[in-house]
Amino acid sequence: MTDRQLHLNVNALPAGAHPAAWRSPGGNPRAWIDIGHYQRVAREAERGLLDAVFLADGLLLRGNVATGPSFALDPVVLVAAMAVATERIGFIATVSTTFHTPYHIARVFSSLDHASGGRVGWNVVTTRDPGAAENHGLTDLPTRAERYARAAETVEVANRLWDSWEDGAFVGDPQTRVFARTDRIHRVDHRGAYHAVRGPLQLPRSPQGRPVLVQAGGSDTGRDLAARYADAVFSPQHLLGSAQAYYADIKSRARAHGRDPDTIRVLPGLNPIVGSTEAEARRRQRELNELVDDDQLLAGFAARFGFDPADLHLDRPFPAGLLRATGDTYGSQGFDDAARALLSADGLTLREIIHQGVIAHRVVVGAPEQIADTIEEWFVQRGADGFNLQCDVYPGGLTDFVDHVVPELQRRGLFRKEYTGTTLRDHLGLARPASSYPAGWVR
Amino acid sequence: MTDRQLHLNVNALPAGAHPAAWRSPGGNPRAWIDIGHYQRVAREAERGLLDAVFLADGLLLRGNVATGPSFALDPVVLVAAMAVATERIGFIATVSTTFHTPYHIARVFSSLDHASGGRVGWNVVTTRDPGAAENHGLTDLPTRAERYARAAETVEVANRLWDSWEDGAFVGDPQTRVFARTDRIHRVDHRGAYHAVRGPLQLPRSPQGRPVLVQAGGSDTGRDLAARYADAVFSPQHLLGSAQAYYADIKSRARAHGRDPDTIRVLPGLNPIVGSTEAEARRRQRELNELVDDDQLLAGFAARFGFDPADLHLDRPFPAGLLRATGDTYGSQGFDDAARALLSADGLTLREIIHQGVIAHRVVVGAPEQIADTIEEWFVQRGADGFNLQCDVYPGGLTDFVDHVVPELQRRGLFRKEYTGTTLRDHLGLARPASSYPAGWVR
Repeated sequence: MTDRQLHLNVNALPAGAHPAAWRSPGGNPRAWIDIGHYQRVAREAERGLLDAVFLADGLLLRGNVATGPSFALDPVVLVAAMAVATERIGFIATVSTTFHTPYHIARVFSSLDHASGGRVGWNVVTTRDPGAAENHGLTDLPTRAERYARAAETVEVANRLWDSWEDGAFVGDPQTRVFARTDRIHRVDHRGAYHAVRGPLQLPRSPQGRPVLVQAGGSDTGRDLAARYADAVFSPQHLLGSAQAYYADIKSRARAHGRDPDTIRVLPGLNPIVGSTEAEARRRQRELNELVDDDQLLAGFAARFGFDPADLHLDRPFPAGLLRATGDTYGSQGFDDAARALLSADGLTLREIIHQGVIAHRVVVGAPEQIADTIEEWFVQRGADGFNLQCDVYPGGLTDFVDHVVPELQRRGLFRKEYTGTTLRDHLGLARPASSYPAGWVR
Repeated sequence: MTDRQLHLNVNALPAGAHPAAWRSPGGNPRAWIDIGHYQRVAREAERGLLDAVFLADGLLLRGNVATGPSFALDPVVLVAAMAVATERIGFIATVSTTFHTPYHIARVFSSLDHASGGRVGWNVVTTRDPGAAENHGLTDLPTRAERYARAAETVEVANRLWDSWEDGAFVGDPQTRVFARTDRIHRVDHRGAYHAVRGPLQLPRSPQGRPVLVQAGGSDTGRDLAARYADAVFSPQHLLGSAQAYYADIKSRARAHGRDPDTIRVLPGLNPIVGSTEAEARRRQRELNELVDDDQLLAGFAARFGFDPADLHLDRPFPAGLLRATGDTYGSQGFDDAARALLSADGLTLREIIHQGVIAHRVVVGAPEQIADTIEEWFVQRGADGFNLQCDVYPGGLTDFVDHVVPELQRRGLFRKEYTGTTLRDHLGLARPASSYPAGWVR
């Protein structure tokens, strides 16, 4: 038993983390455009007392749509529909800072926070896909540095907009006829490098004060943004050592920004494949893998990292000579660092590396106790404050986790036995932030 | 009995059309930020078999927030939450073309159309408020002509994005392992004056093919945009003669654009105050009016049109000399034309003019039969294909309309006795539009 408690989110993917999820037994080919499917996933996650449902996103149609779904429904639409179908669980929606104004983003998340009773977070992304830029009027994406500078300014302005109504500025008293105290509502009058925003926001301060901020910083710039602003950090990590280094780095950067490092939750990705025994879990994984033929498996891996499939063989080790130098990234630096660690590991065939999740997040296969063991190990060894789960197939993979892994974590004293609060900040063990306009503030 | 059937939407305002709605008996001061309130309004409107719930919007905090609510929650969040709480009724959300990319708008409305099973429309607005511009990084709003040119291009591109997946491009067949037929998915490759968009959209064509398009064109430019693209047109009209002229003009412009004029629904605003008798309705209006003191009433009117309150007296006629020439608009030209007609009417005091709805939409006060009489008259006399209702107080005013006026309209054979279709297009009697890529299209 420990005082520290695990935090668990589930990434509600369009079908499942496994590339064959949509066409596996128990999969749902229409899940990606079926709002009822997403609502069922949210209710299942709530039954498991998870902290939040996470909605990742992409802003373009992926080239591999011939073989499976990509991100489709707008995450804001999804969160609104899932929030009103649940009572306690939180929701984290991905919205890019590159294609929206801070006013729009601040209003949308304040709306979701009001609509959900304080259960919403914003996953701040800057978008790295040139195709997404071309869908939004940009022929070239701004550089990473520019995108992150714009993101930081966007977050700053959003925070100010969320604070633009003091707590208590909305009155709504029929007796006195005072609807709002305008002396407690403040313009923002921001003029920065990327944005000009008058404010105030058209909404009172929301139940959480400010929606939870999430970041998935992998690069130096990204880690710094996360350490300055984020309440929670997502990250791909395949090996405990790298995860510990990342964890320590984020906490230390947070400290350098004057923050209590315990107010930022580090949540690596985890893709559990659960069986009642290890053998059953391995059979489950094998049956899913057998739905993907070797050509597709190799092509998916090669396309993800820009390799030539002709240089690769599934049943041999990954050729070390192909690995590019650190810094020469294939896309997201966080994903690349994690992948590099796995690709450099000794004694594994490329097939094994792929099945360990190199394309996305770390795969663990086993009985509930085994899944709980690795969760506990990473948690206790400070590689993680919890995990952002991606299940192989929805809803079945999530149901198995909720029915078998969650009770095991509860038995070990690592995970809540009931929700003790009502907001996402409550679940994450984070305080409601004070307004920029403190009590007693004099204008 | 007539073949033509009435179409009725209800505008789900933050509290009600009456300025004292939020603090009246039966009003709800928290309605503007209460998602449950909006869901109850939607279910009530669905019980009344209405075509759609309409969500108007503003992109700034109004100066009069000290005395009452303005638009708060994001309409997309509202529609998502209302759609999953209902089964048949449609929803029309206002989104401005001035501050978003066509890709974002097309994706959001396609998402809502998928999530609702084809019950969604987009009210295309260009935003006329300088304060909204200042919240979104613009110090000056573009001119009306520029805003409408951008709006037209945005609608064109949105239509192409909605068509970018042919019907049937999404397959999702586990047997053949074909998820989508990429030969039936098309890039948009648009490069126009305002937008550059690659496409395709990341979503299959939605249940309605394209979400319903709504416009509220009052100016010449606005009417033309409506006549070219809109499935339904909202308009403020206080007098039957002006309404008939507007109706004829829209239908004739649609014809000039090569459209069947019967495929565009003209729906003026109507603010019914219903009582079981006329006397009861008048008492209801009087009691609401008595909650607003004379100074506030006059100030609201003066601020709306930019008059000096000192020039006005509530119990005298409106001074004709104050009326500006046509073309010199106070804001929305549609609202101005309608207001001008009413302000020029003989024999009314300013108080009466205000209570007839000059600030917004036409107010009618009476027993259910009287409300039905005026609805029938305007409908039969071709001043309207139906109405966009704003109730005095929600939910009570809507409940009275549903319980008493709807049955009267049904008895007269003017309004449906059950929903006969499942989509908003079905309710409006409009066909699902063919794709730009017709069957047999050769690439």
